[in-house]
Amino acid sequence: MVSCADQPGIVAAVSQFLFAAGANIIRSDQYSSDPYAAQNGGGMFFLRMEFTLAADRREGFAESFGLQVAERFAMTWRMWDSAKPKRVAVLVSREDHCLLDLLWRWRRDELHADIVRVISNWEDLRSDVEAFGLPYFHVPMPPDAKREGEQRMLELLRDNCDVVVLARYMQILSGEFLDALGLPVINIHHSFLPAFEGAGPYQRAKQRGVKLIGATAHYVTAELDGGPIIEQDVVRVTHADSLEEFVRRGAEVERMVFARAVRWHCEDRVIRHGNTTVVF
Amino acid sequence: MVSCADQPGIVAAVSQFLFAAGANIIRSDQYSSDPYAAQNGGGMFFLRMEFTLAADRREGFAESFGLQVAERFAMTWRMWDSAKPKRVAVLVSREDHCLLDLLWRWRRDELHADIVRVISNWEDLRSDVEAFGLPYFHVPMPPDAKREGEQRMLELLRDNCDVVVLARYMQILSGEFLDALGLPVINIHHSFLPAFEGAGPYQRAKQRGVKLIGATAHYVTAELDGGPIIEQDVVRVTHADSLEEFVRRGAEVERMVFARAVRWHCEDRVIRHGNTTVVF
Amino acid sequence: MVSCADQPGIVAAVSQFLFAAGANIIRSDQYSSDPYAAQNGGGMFFLRMEFTLAADRREGFAESFGLQVAERFAMTWRMWDSAKPKRVAVLVSREDHCLLDLLWRWRRDELHADIVRVISNWEDLRSDVEAFGLPYFHVPMPPDAKREGEQRMLELLRDNCDVVVLARYMQILSGEFLDALGLPVINIHHSFLPAFEGAGPYQRAKQRGVKLIGATAHYVTAELDGGPIIEQDVVRVTHADSLEEFVRRGAEVERMVFARAVRWHCEDRVIRHGNTTVVF
Amino acid sequence: MVSCADQPGIVAAVSQFLFAAGANIIRSDQYSSDPYAAQNGGGMFFLRMEFTLAADRREGFAESFGLQVAERFAMTWRMWDSAKPKRVAVLVSREDHCLLDLLWRWRRDELHADIVRVISNWEDLRSDVEAFGLPYFHVPMPPDAKREGEQRMLELLRDNCDVVVLARYMQILSGEFLDALGLPVINIHHSFLPAFEGAGPYQRAKQRGVKLIGATAHYVTAELDGGPIIEQDVVRVTHADSLEEFVRRGAEVERMVFARAVRWHCEDRVIRHGNTTVVF
Repeated sequence: MVSCADQPGIVAAVSQFLFAAGANIIRSDQYSSDPYAAQNGGGMFFLRMEFTLAADRREGFAESFGLQVAERFAMTWRMWDSAKPKRVAVLVSREDHCLLDLLWRWRRDELHADIVRVISNWEDLRSDVEAFGLPYFHVPMPPDAKREGEQRMLELLRDNCDVVVLARYMQILSGEFLDALGLPVINIHHSFLPAFEGAGPYQRAKQRGVKLIGATAHYVTAELDGGPIIEQDVVRVTHADSLEEFVRRGAEVERMVFARAVRWHCEDRVIRHGNTTVVF
Repeated sequence: MVSCADQPGIVAAVSQFLFAAGANIIRSDQYSSDPYAAQNGGGMFFLRMEFTLAADRREGFAESFGLQVAERFAMTWRMWDSAKPKRVAVLVSREDHCLLDLLWRWRRDELHADIVRVISNWEDLRSDVEAFGLPYFHVPMPPDAKREGEQRMLELLRDNCDVVVLARYMQILSGEFLDALGLPVINIHHSFLPAFEGAGPYQRAKQRGVKLIGATAHYVTAELDGGPIIEQDVVRVTHADSLEEFVRRGAEVERMVFARAVRWHCEDRVIRHGNTTVVF
Repeated sequence: MVSCADQPGIVAAVSQFLFAAGANIIRSDQYSSDPYAAQNGGGMFFLRMEFTLAADRREGFAESFGLQVAERFAMTWRMWDSAKPKRVAVLVSREDHCLLDLLWRWRRDELHADIVRVISNWEDLRSDVEAFGLPYFHVPMPPDAKREGEQRMLELLRDNCDVVVLARYMQILSGEFLDALGLPVINIHHSFLPAFEGAGPYQRAKQRGVKLIGATAHYVTAELDGGPIIEQDVVRVTHADSLEEFVRRGAEVERMVFARAVRWHCEDRVIRHGNTTVVF
Repeated sequence: MVSCADQPGIVAAVSQFLFAAGANIIRSDQYSSDPYAAQNGGGMFFLRMEFTLAADRREGFAESFGLQVAERFAMTWRMWDSAKPKRVAVLVSREDHCLLDLLWRWRRDELHADIVRVISNWEDLRSDVEAFGLPYFHVPMPPDAKREGEQRMLELLRDNCDVVVLARYMQILSGEFLDALGLPVINIHHSFLPAFEGAGPYQRAKQRGVKLIGATAHYVTAELDGGPIIEQDVVRVTHADSLEEFVRRGAEVERMVFARAVRWHCEDRVIRHGNTTVVF
């Protein structure tokens, strides 16, 4: 995964390096934010390549790439062995739909990731989670001891996972927590952002009389509901649908959007680009 | 079309009246905003019935309904001869997609309405409109003479149409104009309201990195982009789509949503209920 | 739920009867297969009404309806206490997605039905099912003893449920079994019927190069994949999606379509009309 | 646009050639039908690159590519100056929706192609077409003189266009005609193929009670409705929709699917791969 200032010759250099090293490209995606400006150094370039490489050729491979290619183009880059699944930690409150859907998909090997633990500020979902053979940690979040709660979560998360996903976790994470964690955090918001940011989106959607309700998966930043969007989808509602029906249909689209976003992140298909994402 | 405080016996009374008068119900739709409260006078009830009635039985029919049924339940009601299409006036600026789609549907008899005239603050679309055999009125709207422009429009619209539709009319209509007009006005907004209210929605959508863009047809009220929503739809976009591509795809969903809303209104299938709509 | 030859006065008679008996209509839907023919006795009429009725007025209510209304119009009709959920038996083979989704919705009270037992020709899913507190019956279906297997299933199903649902049950049910069962049976077929009837639909879809794959829930009849369709939906695929990806995405749309069909059936919202369905 | 047997080094060779020649890649897409087999010569590889090249470097550029790159990998390839739009000829019968939608998009510069002429076996649409400043040719197709009709069409098409598109042209083109024409032909079929191949798809869809109707754009081959699919989409219908409503909604999805397929073809984004397509 590569990003750098756009300029001629990047693909040639990367693909030539891979070919010479004996790698075989399986899949390749690229995106220029402003392709016609590349000659003049404008725009950003993003490249994602999947390739196979024989085990006996891997030693020093990444270092060589860094020296021979990445440095020349001042690339931000990372290389990931796709046989090594990302470790996912789940935070959840009491709603089970996003969590269970994710656990099912994980068990069916649909997720290309390893779920490693579940943390909740409630006890409710313990037996469901443990039935999947996963550890469940209860970390209460009383209004007067959130700092301690977040501290406890940090201990449970750091060094144990590569990404944290919020499967309807109804607590706001502090900026200090996010900084200390230093890992990507994915949230599912139950509306079509930027409509209905904040609390009670279905109730406000019902009052506004919208004809579609949606869900948005995004990276969490210090700005509430303002982080880069990974995926969104909607489902149709009518005047005849009650608030309960909004919530029921919303749950359906939430769990699908959430699972897609987690999967794509774990397949290293999402790159942040300012406050937006490039999804390959 | 009937709306009134919900209470037992409404359907029985209406259908009994129609049966006794020799009418045959073709289609019937109803909606209670709070059905379990009807026994206690809570909630609102909405009823729409299509029926046939022999020509020689129509005299005095509406009056009888008023006296025998509507008064008893304190109904707000209207009766409309569906053989008499609604007269539609179109306001447009320079974008042709919503206008042409509507004119074409009208020519194909898809609209169940009569388009009677087109008014624009530009000359651009005259020949397209006249090719459909429709009168085209150019009413300029210079910043310093909007009052005069709206006055001229009032003369062109009043008594000549039953509904005014804005097929991408890029001027804000004043509250005075709307009051003086006294007719329903339908607008197409090029975003999924309430996201991106106001100007430049596609540009803001691109900046926010949304994965879906939408369109919203709504009744115009004095509050900009705040009126009751009739219909909405969305279309998928990706990071790779330019602003121009957002606009192109948006145009596609705009014209469909707009045509649906106009059609439903002209078939008397939309009732305003506070700041929302009931669409049968 | 009422169906009969279309004719004037049906709604008036039914709603007048309900009003006089003290019932309050909560929801009403109707459909005429040929509304303009009603005066001449053509077309079929379908009516579904939900109503509340005080407990002390229920005695003899259904009988009175039969004598006073249904007989007069020669109606096919049934009345169902919605507080009494339908009993659902599930047949499944080894694929878990439709089953688990259904059990989870049942636990969340989304289904408006009672799942009472699960029968499988494999042992695989026993622990998943038992974790929901449901009995799991293993009824093998060896090619040379299908008759015995179906006999055993009949014993397990008859008198124990109101509807049988096939959550990816990969055995063909014989006409004798269906006749002896005498209950509605709902199947989920993993394609957009009538495309790709029969076995291997995803493989054939991949070979044909379709751009959408779908799922169809239908009532089972003696004609394989030919019964009345209750619900269908599709999901987009591309040339780049492997057969495995077709199957994964297909599973997603299968479980949603299946759950919708089961729910609608259990809410008494589906009427068979020849080889089609009316879904209110 | 390149296709060849998959093997290591293709991307490196192509991108190195382009870089050395001073070209700047604007967009690149690739697809391996079986990426893990590339080392052993299995699978097919497809590559599409858009690039800019200064005018003074174009002489001999394509020849050099042929000699230095294409020959080495035994590529099937073509290079197209995107500033030179494809020339499109339209065949149509009496239905105007696919035709007019295409002509609008062409006039709005949405199509990235030049529509050059319209041929019809009816006179009906002449004035509509001529209003766009396009020549309209009436070529009757009486059952006893189809051969002469096709001969006349050949004269009108050959050397005058790069692709022929059937905007609801209700005549079957003979294999002899297709062979003699030697150009790609795109058809819009009014169903979700392979469901409802042949005549009367909406009528058969209504009888079968489907819940979605669709449209399919595909390349025409000698096998009726059997050619490679370019694009498909569907729209929801219910039991309450009449056959006329099926046709009306179908027309909407037909014209969108058709316009997408024509656009993608004219942007050189579609490659035939056996009886399927790769759409970049």
